Amino acid sequence: MVKIEESDGRNKDVFIDINGEDVDMAAKIVRKRSEKTGLAPGTLIHVGDKKAAKVNINIFSFDETHYEEKQVATLQQALPASDKPGVTWIDIEGLTDISIIESLGRHFNFHPLMLEDILSTDQRPKMEDFDEYLYIVLRMIYPNDKPGEFVNEQVSLIVGKNYVVSFQEQEKTGDVFAPIRESIRTAKGKIRKLGPDYLAYSLIDAIVDGYFVVMEKIGDEIELREEEVALDPTPQTLRVLHRLKREMILLRRSLWPLREVISALERGNSSLIQSETLFYLKDVYDHTIHILDTIESLREMLTGMLDIYLSSLANRTNEVMKVLTIIATIFIPLTFIVGIYGMNFDFMPELKWRWGYFAVWGGMIVVTLVMVLFFRRKRWM
Amino acid sequence: MVKIEESDGRNKDVFIDINGEDVDMAAKIVRKRSEKTGLAPGTLIHVGDKKAAKVNINIFSFDETHYEEKQVATLQQALPASDKPGVTWIDIEGLTDISIIESLGRHFNFHPLMLEDILSTDQRPKMEDFDEYLYIVLRMIYPNDKPGEFVNEQVSLIVGKNYVVSFQEQEKTGDVFAPIRESIRTAKGKIRKLGPDYLAYSLIDAIVDGYFVVMEKIGDEIELREEEVALDPTPQTLRVLHRLKREMILLRRSLWPLREVISALERGNSSLIQSETLFYLKDVYDHTIHILDTIESLREMLTGMLDIYLSSLANRTNEVMKVLTIIATIFIPLTFIVGIYGMNFDFMPELKWRWGYFAVWGGMIVVTLVMVLFFRRKRWM
Amino acid sequence: MVKIEESDGRNKDVFIDINGEDVDMAAKIVRKRSEKTGLAPGTLIHVGDKKAAKVNINIFSFDETHYEEKQVATLQQALPASDKPGVTWIDIEGLTDISIIESLGRHFNFHPLMLEDILSTDQRPKMEDFDEYLYIVLRMIYPNDKPGEFVNEQVSLIVGKNYVVSFQEQEKTGDVFAPIRESIRTAKGKIRKLGPDYLAYSLIDAIVDGYFVVMEKIGDEIELREEEVALDPTPQTLRVLHRLKREMILLRRSLWPLREVISALERGNSSLIQSETLFYLKDVYDHTIHILDTIESLREMLTGMLDIYLSSLANRTNEVMKVLTIIATIFIPLTFIVGIYGMNFDFMPELKWRWGYFAVWGGMIVVTLVMVLFFRRKRWM
Amino acid sequence: MVKIEESDGRNKDVFIDINGEDVDMAAKIVRKRSEKTGLAPGTLIHVGDKKAAKVNINIFSFDETHYEEKQVATLQQALPASDKPGVTWIDIEGLTDISIIESLGRHFNFHPLMLEDILSTDQRPKMEDFDEYLYIVLRMIYPNDKPGEFVNEQVSLIVGKNYVVSFQEQEKTGDVFAPIRESIRTAKGKIRKLGPDYLAYSLIDAIVDGYFVVMEKIGDEIELREEEVALDPTPQTLRVLHRLKREMILLRRSLWPLREVISALERGNSSLIQSETLFYLKDVYDHTIHILDTIESLREMLTGMLDIYLSSLANRTNEVMKVLTIIATIFIPLTFIVGIYGMNFDFMPELKWRWGYFAVWGGMIVVTLVMVLFFRRKRWM
Amino acid sequence: MVKIEESDGRNKDVFIDINGEDVDMAAKIVRKRSEKTGLAPGTLIHVGDKKAAKVNINIFSFDETHYEEKQVATLQQALPASDKPGVTWIDIEGLTDISIIESLGRHFNFHPLMLEDILSTDQRPKMEDFDEYLYIVLRMIYPNDKPGEFVNEQVSLIVGKNYVVSFQEQEKTGDVFAPIRESIRTAKGKIRKLGPDYLAYSLIDAIVDGYFVVMEKIGDEIELREEEVALDPTPQTLRVLHRLKREMILLRRSLWPLREVISALERGNSSLIQSETLFYLKDVYDHTIHILDTIESLREMLTGMLDIYLSSLANRTNEVMKVLTIIATIFIPLTFIVGIYGMNFDFMPELKWRWGYFAVWGGMIVVTLVMVLFFRRKRWM
Repeated sequence: MVKIEESDGRNKDVFIDINGEDVDMAAKIVRKRSEKTGLAPGTLIHVGDKKAAKVNINIFSFDETHYEEKQVATLQQALPASDKPGVTWIDIEGLTDISIIESLGRHFNFHPLMLEDILSTDQRPKMEDFDEYLYIVLRMIYPNDKPGEFVNEQVSLIVGKNYVVSFQEQEKTGDVFAPIRESIRTAKGKIRKLGPDYLAYSLIDAIVDGYFVVMEKIGDEIELREEEVALDPTPQTLRVLHRLKREMILLRRSLWPLREVISALERGNSSLIQSETLFYLKDVYDHTIHILDTIESLREMLTGMLDIYLSSLANRTNEVMKVLTIIATIFIPLTFIVGIYGMNFDFMPELKWRWGYFAVWGGMIVVTLVMVLFFRRKRWM
Repeated sequence: MVKIEESDGRNKDVFIDINGEDVDMAAKIVRKRSEKTGLAPGTLIHVGDKKAAKVNINIFSFDETHYEEKQVATLQQALPASDKPGVTWIDIEGLTDISIIESLGRHFNFHPLMLEDILSTDQRPKMEDFDEYLYIVLRMIYPNDKPGEFVNEQVSLIVGKNYVVSFQEQEKTGDVFAPIRESIRTAKGKIRKLGPDYLAYSLIDAIVDGYFVVMEKIGDEIELREEEVALDPTPQTLRVLHRLKREMILLRRSLWPLREVISALERGNSSLIQSETLFYLKDVYDHTIHILDTIESLREMLTGMLDIYLSSLANRTNEVMKVLTIIATIFIPLTFIVGIYGMNFDFMPELKWRWGYFAVWGGMIVVTLVMVLFFRRKRWM
Repeated sequence: MVKIEESDGRNKDVFIDINGEDVDMAAKIVRKRSEKTGLAPGTLIHVGDKKAAKVNINIFSFDETHYEEKQVATLQQALPASDKPGVTWIDIEGLTDISIIESLGRHFNFHPLMLEDILSTDQRPKMEDFDEYLYIVLRMIYPNDKPGEFVNEQVSLIVGKNYVVSFQEQEKTGDVFAPIRESIRTAKGKIRKLGPDYLAYSLIDAIVDGYFVVMEKIGDEIELREEEVALDPTPQTLRVLHRLKREMILLRRSLWPLREVISALERGNSSLIQSETLFYLKDVYDHTIHILDTIESLREMLTGMLDIYLSSLANRTNEVMKVLTIIATIFIPLTFIVGIYGMNFDFMPELKWRWGYFAVWGGMIVVTLVMVLFFRRKRWM
Repeated sequence: MVKIEESDGRNKDVFIDINGEDVDMAAKIVRKRSEKTGLAPGTLIHVGDKKAAKVNINIFSFDETHYEEKQVATLQQALPASDKPGVTWIDIEGLTDISIIESLGRHFNFHPLMLEDILSTDQRPKMEDFDEYLYIVLRMIYPNDKPGEFVNEQVSLIVGKNYVVSFQEQEKTGDVFAPIRESIRTAKGKIRKLGPDYLAYSLIDAIVDGYFVVMEKIGDEIELREEEVALDPTPQTLRVLHRLKREMILLRRSLWPLREVISALERGNSSLIQSETLFYLKDVYDHTIHILDTIESLREMLTGMLDIYLSSLANRTNEVMKVLTIIATIFIPLTFIVGIYGMNFDFMPELKWRWGYFAVWGGMIVVTLVMVLFFRRKRWM
Repeated sequence: MVKIEESDGRNKDVFIDINGEDVDMAAKIVRKRSEKTGLAPGTLIHVGDKKAAKVNINIFSFDETHYEEKQVATLQQALPASDKPGVTWIDIEGLTDISIIESLGRHFNFHPLMLEDILSTDQRPKMEDFDEYLYIVLRMIYPNDKPGEFVNEQVSLIVGKNYVVSFQEQEKTGDVFAPIRESIRTAKGKIRKLGPDYLAYSLIDAIVDGYFVVMEKIGDEIELREEEVALDPTPQTLRVLHRLKREMILLRRSLWPLREVISALERGNSSLIQSETLFYLKDVYDHTIHILDTIESLREMLTGMLDIYLSSLANRTNEVMKVLTIIATIFIPLTFIVGIYGMNFDFMPELKWRWGYFAVWGGMIVVTLVMVLFFRRKRWM
């Protein structure tokens, strides 16, 4: 079973569960945003999971020749000067400590609305160019602990002249970025040679790659259901198909604006994106299109399966009807015949006949054979 | 139950009521506009509710250091000179007193067609740039007194160089703007520091936030119906689904042009919109897109629920058919058998047999078992 | 009942009639154009109704201070010199007298293809700019004599520097323009102060207002049918829904290109349209969008009603099935039981029992109760 | 019956025939193009009908004052010098003689790919500008010999500075161009006064007019089927509806690119099109839009008829079910009652009663009346 | 049976097989891309079939006067100098030997991401302009060994100033390019006279021609199924229709971006494409549109067939119901009648009547005739 899960603590009941409660979809689609209604714009409040108390801050500073890696408790001592050479990557896991966001905002002079967006973890993917820095929101999907479940989490990236700040909702997500950390440590690939834009590209690429994994798992489940739909359709099957269709919609909702974000980056209007990186962005862009294509195909496939499901139902009714018709059509006339000779008229010549009883049996056998032939010709038997 | 209601006095019967009369949808979609047919363009007549007799006028004058708040009966004494510094916000609740609109029009030299639009409360959201001032029409949705009911009301904003005039259809709506009044009073946020464009933005933001509340309530109701659709579908359920779908359409109809309005404002062609405000407008724009996205998802969900509903119906017919078929198929042959031995032929050897009766019982038990096995294999039992 | 009717004499059978013949829709959609095939382009022939023999010509000449109104038999004596100041409005009702069109064409030097278009009364709304004059085709919808019927008629407008020529198919339509004549006579509004472009705008506005009336009547009929669909659906209901849907399509077909026409006028590329009029055109444009919006909503509503209709049908089959199943399932086993004791075996111990008969009754009551409980649990009773 | 037929010799089986074989649609949609696979581009081979052996060549040379008409066997002697004044129209009926195309290509120096396109008679309508000449492909539809059948044939036009070459697949099609020949002979209209562009326009106009004829015939057939669908739907009806729908699709496929062709011509980028002709092209363009509009309306109508068809089927099942239910529900209980008194218990008090038999009759009449009332209340009777 | 097959070794189970296992569609749509997750961008790894061990390299060097053809084992000795005149075509069949790709990349200085794309054989068709060379990805479809099966394979083309490199996944595909090799050898057509752009065009043209073959085979299968759908629909038929529909989707997915690729080439922005070739590209472009058109028509046809399938099912249920109803409705009342006279009341006057028995027979015949007439009138018999 595939399940996409929100990282905000309501993950138990987000999707229709195949075996049980399936009523929380709507809640998921409409996030509890109303609690923010009435607040002044720019007020920092974390809309999302409030449980994950611990916040991890990993800081990587590197250039082509060295790199430095540290894990800090508070941010202040670790923020790079604006003219520091090389690239500083501040990776923040967990959004519960608003003071971190605030001090970061003061240090880099970030726009308050952007900080608000980082904390509202129900954003659509988008890119905003603040000249001094780019703000990119993405949605990351990655496997949960439980088999067949996924987490849909917001990742924010701020790309400056010599730094990248990345925000994730949960500590665990770090795993998706692990290969990138490893590349920095081992100076593999171009990551140490190029600037923060290439680092940002690598982070986006890692996130997009995560979608391939999810697509495959969903594809596997569809494969599994395909036979069930045609051979043994139950109302349960229908609900699974609709759940899968909804997951497709959610994936597309995450991916479609992501495509626009990458396209906007790749069009290269920002001075923060080096021309060398543009080519790599085009490559991620192609991957996004590829996944969107696959989503469309899977949706068309699900639509076909829904059709097959409905016509399997109709076929079944047909089959039930045929059994009833065959039995009733054969036996109702026979019952009528035996009813005739159950009548108590004083004068019924047949009753006296020596072979009357056997003649009736003969007649009934003939009637039955005629019926059977009729059904054969109709191809009902 | 969620109900969207028109503020024009016909609110009792606007939507299909789950428990009763549900025939007034069409009336709602087609507002009584015909009464205006034949009048010269620019003729002021209030198309909408004529009951809410009282008109409230609240005037706020403020700049960064002071603010003044007054509630006036007639408008004349309170209109700002065109060169008055600071911002004057004239908030008019109720459209029944046409003389107010007229005197306002004379003072500010407003275009007569615009005044006509303010009074025709069935406008689509739109923005018109009259150089000297901007005219913005929005549709506001907010909770009614009755639980689960909403009011869909027209709000007009006129944004000038040093003033904002806002028109609401009913007194009650003031509540949505209450936090803005409070911000002005307490000088919280940027509202006192920036111009009328920021005030207009705040009003639009407050209105858009109201949609989140409505979306959540509708989402909750969909959640509630989801189980019902699969387990106990009634024709009633179907009508509720269609009502919800229609509400989605109405919401989208209000929101889609609103998105265009905000987009037009944000493109920043008017000299009345300061560049600092543009960023905030982009933020409201993102919210609008967010709600539209949610509406689409909820619509897809409703479509899926309609599918599930219809196949639940088919499943039910199937189940009824199976019961009938099982009973009929088992008992019709048995009835035939007992019919045979109810015949009155003089010569029927079995009738004389000692164990004839019990042999028939045995035969009937065998037939029944064969049938049951057949149904088991067909998985009908 | 709402019926849209062509003004070309085939109005008896244009639409599916709820009570009777409903086969003429296709004829309506495909007008008899083939009779023109093979003629040289620019040949004047009236495609449309040839019955309405009389042609009315009303001529209004006015400027800000005077106005003159006359009704003439032939056109020649009344045509304005090209340098005559003020505005001349030539209103021609009836297209049967081709000589009028021809003499008009000669006087103003109109393009022959345009004259051909005026006479072919199945044009889509369009606007053509001939530099010296604008040619506008509209479709007007207005109530017929019979209650609930409408006429769909072509109106052509030619807007020159100091004149407007309007062509209507029938005399009766004049009523729609009556308020405009009245405004000219009484110098109400701006009509006497502004030029022929404002007069053309007023005519277009009057025509668009006519759509509101039709929308309301159709909306009323939909309202009426809504209950019927859910409670007592007949095949008749289905056909009415499809008729209404088709009327929606026809209305949209008339309106959609009209929107483009007004948009083209309003973009203001023609020197014949004064800038002051542009604003008024924008207003009509908004009305057109408003009606199109309403049409879309009504169509979505009709689609929903068709869904409800179909599922009402399925529900009904379900209900019929349940009654059959309940009756058959209770009585078939009972009939079997009584059949047993109707057998004539010599040795059937129960038949001798003193209370056998009553025991059978008891058994049958038990069976019946079990069945009733079973149906209750299934919620079929 | 309406049938669209390919002119390439496979016309016997192109469409689903209402009375018989209906399996050749796919063959039609996918023309046998594969035989060309592997040939070098520009190789001249006639893809299409190879039967129509005779090729007719009609040559018209005309200017405002004279005209000359000849029918030649070979082309060479008749080709105009490139600086010959006036207009030469070479009308070629039949594509089987490739040498004609080749010599024409050599004389005028035509592009080999264009010659290939002329011979591949499954082209979509398109326009190509070769500077020296324009190449236009159209699809012509006209009535066949058999009543209710149509031919779908490719027409190619080459428009040069002082000539027009037109290619038709079959001799018979000349009829469509007959009025144009007549206009040239009689110098009627502008055809002798204007250049080859006006001649090309006239040919296109004649072809577009042919669509009106086909639309009317199809409209008539839809009209015919409308009643049948609601009152007596058979599987046959469904297939006719689908055939008509497919014909709509084919017509739109021919017409939609034609619209683009005319639009491209009318935009007037080619120096070969005189500005005076542009206006006439706009007129044909309007006709194309008009037909496309009609096609859309007829398609919507067919969709509606399919809906009505399906619900008629459902209604019928309903009706059958009701009859069964009424009969079974009334007689099954009665049969049970008479079964009771057919039991052979020694002690059954009722059997001894004087009026027992009549009491049973009374009881049965009461049961029947109750049932009938029940069905009346349910409105099943 | 038509089957499209992937060339990557999983070809046994790619599509729903009509006779058996049909669960691998999803696997096909979602290619196993996840194995690449976490690798640095630009890492060369072959995503696709790893079995086809042998790699063929064919090198053609030609100009207008000579040509040279060789088949080499390793690439190095055969690579052309960058200033070598004439055209060198390096045709590589098989992608398993990564060292070939690498040495090619070093020699021509190809971008690493492009090399990665060549090896990832699940690309969408695309074109990338690297100034020095163009990179074109296409999807080729051609017949497999097994009748009715097809291979869907990626072809990469690199077009430089004096060379074309083509990559195919399998040796066998060479056949599609065989006519091109032959043209080079025999100097037929323009291929020896023009540059690498014309060679690239010829390759693309050969690939597009392959689609016509596949379309025809699919068209033939649809034709085959058309009768089956209407006359003998089985659940199997439905699945075949859905398989065909999915094949349509896959074909369109391959072709739609191909159209864009050709359109981009044809727009002629690259200096590598000579203006003479542009015309030929336009021709291929028209072919692509033609195939897409056909795909759309076949899809509409399949949709129609699905409709007919479903209504055939409904018709069948109807027919079964009618037989049941006729039999039950005739015999249930008769059985009741004979039941009456099977009662054992002491006083039943009819039983004593001389002609009672025959009167009952008469009554039953009358009842039967009435029923038969009723069914005739209902047109059920």
